[in-house]
Amino acid sequence: MANISRLKIDQADFWKVLEQKLAWNSVADENIVSIVQDIVREVRSKKDKALLEYTYKFDHVTASSVADLEVPMDTIEASLSALPIDQQEALKTAAQRITHYHQHQRQESWIYTEADGTVLGQQITPLDRVGLYVPGGKAAYPSSVLMNALPAKVAGVPELIMVVPSPHGEINRLVLAAAAVAGVDRVFTVGGAQAIAALAFGTETIPKVDKIVGPGNIYVATAKSIVFGQVGIDMIAGPSEILVFCDGKTDSEWITTDLFSQAEHDEDAQAILLSTDKNFLDQIERTIEKLLPTFERHKIIETSLKNRGMLIEVENVDQALEIINFIAPEHLELSVENPQDIASHVRHAGAIFMGRYTAEALGDYCAGPNHVLPTSRTARFASPLGVYDFQKRSSLIQCSPKGSQNLGKIASILARGEGLTAHARSAEHRF
Amino acid sequence: MANISRLKIDQADFWKVLEQKLAWNSVADENIVSIVQDIVREVRSKKDKALLEYTYKFDHVTASSVADLEVPMDTIEASLSALPIDQQEALKTAAQRITHYHQHQRQESWIYTEADGTVLGQQITPLDRVGLYVPGGKAAYPSSVLMNALPAKVAGVPELIMVVPSPHGEINRLVLAAAAVAGVDRVFTVGGAQAIAALAFGTETIPKVDKIVGPGNIYVATAKSIVFGQVGIDMIAGPSEILVFCDGKTDSEWITTDLFSQAEHDEDAQAILLSTDKNFLDQIERTIEKLLPTFERHKIIETSLKNRGMLIEVENVDQALEIINFIAPEHLELSVENPQDIASHVRHAGAIFMGRYTAEALGDYCAGPNHVLPTSRTARFASPLGVYDFQKRSSLIQCSPKGSQNLGKIASILARGEGLTAHARSAEHRF
Repeated sequence: MANISRLKIDQADFWKVLEQKLAWNSVADENIVSIVQDIVREVRSKKDKALLEYTYKFDHVTASSVADLEVPMDTIEASLSALPIDQQEALKTAAQRITHYHQHQRQESWIYTEADGTVLGQQITPLDRVGLYVPGGKAAYPSSVLMNALPAKVAGVPELIMVVPSPHGEINRLVLAAAAVAGVDRVFTVGGAQAIAALAFGTETIPKVDKIVGPGNIYVATAKSIVFGQVGIDMIAGPSEILVFCDGKTDSEWITTDLFSQAEHDEDAQAILLSTDKNFLDQIERTIEKLLPTFERHKIIETSLKNRGMLIEVENVDQALEIINFIAPEHLELSVENPQDIASHVRHAGAIFMGRYTAEALGDYCAGPNHVLPTSRTARFASPLGVYDFQKRSSLIQCSPKGSQNLGKIASILARGEGLTAHARSAEHRF
Repeated sequence: MANISRLKIDQADFWKVLEQKLAWNSVADENIVSIVQDIVREVRSKKDKALLEYTYKFDHVTASSVADLEVPMDTIEASLSALPIDQQEALKTAAQRITHYHQHQRQESWIYTEADGTVLGQQITPLDRVGLYVPGGKAAYPSSVLMNALPAKVAGVPELIMVVPSPHGEINRLVLAAAAVAGVDRVFTVGGAQAIAALAFGTETIPKVDKIVGPGNIYVATAKSIVFGQVGIDMIAGPSEILVFCDGKTDSEWITTDLFSQAEHDEDAQAILLSTDKNFLDQIERTIEKLLPTFERHKIIETSLKNRGMLIEVENVDQALEIINFIAPEHLELSVENPQDIASHVRHAGAIFMGRYTAEALGDYCAGPNHVLPTSRTARFASPLGVYDFQKRSSLIQCSPKGSQNLGKIASILARGEGLTAHARSAEHRF
């Protein structure tokens, strides 16, 4: 049988074992933190010069200036038109669908006037400039460019700067094509902690941004956490995970492949299946055995399932919901007859894929919702990347003379209660 | 004349001096980080026992159990009814106004159906449980309890746990009264890094929360940054600041007192006045001189104005807007004739106070908008604390059989382009 943990909710140590299997610690060691601190400090003070040195050192790219590392817009456009037509069309359709979905997330300014003429509201504005980090080499995913760039564009961010390393000068054409489709404004072939520092503090050539988004390795993640406060950042993601709940009536090969599609990301990815049907779980074990050798990335899948995978037997939907809300999964697939009934009781999940036809992989590319989702149980308090991450709010307050009297009296009492008499007198001046 | 910097936008070094005066570095030194790491680790592993020990050590409070440190609900209610009627009414009116304003921020779930029957949407849910940190001693502000608790309540958070240290057993009655008004569910008299660790990881007595909000000293802020990821946190605030833009036609005593109301917070607070009227700036200097001795907190105000205050002369509104958007102030007061014209060009500010009657202090207590605002130029990418900080989103995707065919083909092409063949096969199974 397949090498994957089997659990039952009624076993004595169930919740303890579950919690241990879910645990993930992504803290960088002190050595990495210290290296990244040095890089950030150097780039902050020596700017372009330091950036060129690190790019030579880590990416083995020699350039006489950072301007030489900017990819001309016509090269980016050419990367798109050089692709086979079906890939061009797939990227464009995905981009249209993602844009359409995200337009529903746009927030608008609002205002209301009180009886005494006082006006209150909230003004919504986009960020001025956003940096998008894209990893180089093998993990360079064009879908990630679309998912990070398009919500910023929908929010109305006027300038989007992408950085992507080109180790030994190699650059991923699909990533450039996705940048063209997504309307990225400028692309620099720099990467690592040095690219994050350049975006956060600006150099002579690379403009300083207000927020940095996009995935990266531990050096990139550490650099993002160091520059946070100077600029905004997105969540720092842990390994990707899926929780599938199946009533046992979906084709076992479909479900097995769904679990594999999560496990193939990397050895730390996590795929969990919940079912009320013990026989179905047995069948899934056999199907894993049977199908595994037929997958290109079977070694990664095997390790991931062995280390972090779980098949969990529950007795009823309520127990399944208890586990779902405890795990707060990044991806939740409800492969059951009436998924909406269950979904309405899900309190925590990054994305919910409902029904037997909704493979999680569709959401990774083109269904419309974002594939940047809260991992490692953070869906308890965090949300998918969205347009709201590229908009911000300013409160609006305009008191009428009468309103300032009414409010001034209350403010004065409370300010004096707190011992802040300048606050009180500032309010009292107006009445 | 008053001890406060005078600047003119046309002086050669203007932007450099401005940037230096604005700079703020809030990083805790290594010693503090190391102390806080120890406290967090101890409370995480020894729970109640460690929490009691630290409470004895730092707050000089002896208790035989953490349960003894919980404030009974009737004590909390009694704190409110023991207040003078005008304070009770002021707290209640402020709470009503804050609640009413924040109700406009509630986000609702949405869903749409495509032509082929595929359903897409976003499900909005409140957080399960939130922790609210309230400082003890002098900086204990009841207004802060209202501003942090009420948005969570409006969001629908079922359980709100407040922690507040009671050094030597002393507890601020106004803070408890505010907790009663705000509908806080439970209150524990613990504080410092140990209280943050207890909320983040849970103890035998204190329930684990999903997010921690509220102000605190450097130990509290450091603890929050350490537990971030385990739980959500709000922004870590720098010193409070105000930028006033005045056309010179508002009473100079009003404007001076507005500047003082910011400066009285602490020595690091920052008050800046922009004006197109040189004579008005001269007059403000004289008014500062004249009024300063009449304020209780004149020493703090004097130091704050000397170290971080600025009076800046500009030639026109466009220059003022350039400086406003550069600073991205926490509080922006537009003390001019037509403030809405200017406000519509403000791209970055935490809160905008419009018109001569709108003292910033009104917003601190009872106008309605939140007083927890992005400081230190972070309004470039951050927003006031709001209901949206206590709600989260789950993407919803339900493909029809036809929809899974259409999307599956696109996903398959893109997944194969990325070398993720299990993703491709998972999509292909559905068509």
